[in-house]
Amino acid sequence: MSKNGLLLVGHGSRLQYNKELITTTAQMMADKTDKYLIKSCFMENSVPTVPEGLDAMRAEDLDLLVVVPLFLAKGIHVLRDIPGLLGLESGSNRGVFTLESGKEIPVVYAEPIGIDPLLAELMLKNAENAVAAHL
Amino acid sequence: MSKNGLLLVGHGSRLQYNKELITTTAQMMADKTDKYLIKSCFMENSVPTVPEGLDAMRAEDLDLLVVVPLFLAKGIHVLRDIPGLLGLESGSNRGVFTLESGKEIPVVYAEPIGIDPLLAELMLKNAENAVAAHL
Repeated sequence: MSKNGLLLVGHGSRLQYNKELITTTAQMMADKTDKYLIKSCFMENSVPTVPEGLDAMRAEDLDLLVVVPLFLAKGIHVLRDIPGLLGLESGSNRGVFTLESGKEIPVVYAEPIGIDPLLAELMLKNAENAVAAHL
Repeated sequence: MSKNGLLLVGHGSRLQYNKELITTTAQMMADKTDKYLIKSCFMENSVPTVPEGLDAMRAEDLDLLVVVPLFLAKGIHVLRDIPGLLGLESGSNRGVFTLESGKEIPVVYAEPIGIDPLLAELMLKNAENAVAAHL
């Protein structure tokens, strides 16, 4: 059965924390929906790398691949490096991805965290937790 | 009337995007609750700086200050630089903050974004939006 792939891309780090953040978030996403086959990969310092993550997706029978950068801001990784690895034309957020089978599917590139009410909610929750721990 | 202050700390950037992310998130937080007097400040490249943000809080009549790092991961800014600027002892997330009036209030230091179901929800939303834009 064909389905959509979702590749979550994290920064990676020599510290274990960043990898855990990405892989746990990927697991939480998989727990919330079965719409996607979800895998994660990393720009640097952690594995699998982005090319390895893409290769893992190539081995699946997908109809579409969406690549989601788990980054806070639109820095150089989000704006240039990841689109480059996806073979996207400059400024475009869609392209073509070729599976191992030779099948060509669309690849779309999602936004990083960015300005979002959910982020505001998350920051307020962290504030509440810190205040509650103090009391 | 005394109240709690919330200082949102962003990374800052030469690009306008990061500042907009922080200040818009601070505004969204203020729209969600009136429990806090909310201000924002930046580690580097953007103003106000963290010392300037703390001084702005000192001028208010507060009962407690909570400092919330709008960072994705526990890197050097979150683990060392911001606690240092708050005068926290190593490894502690609470301390004392002295207002201009001379009043001493507690300062508590919140967690960065981190592993959170809201982050998973946000990433799925961004994926959905990218797929929908493609269709």
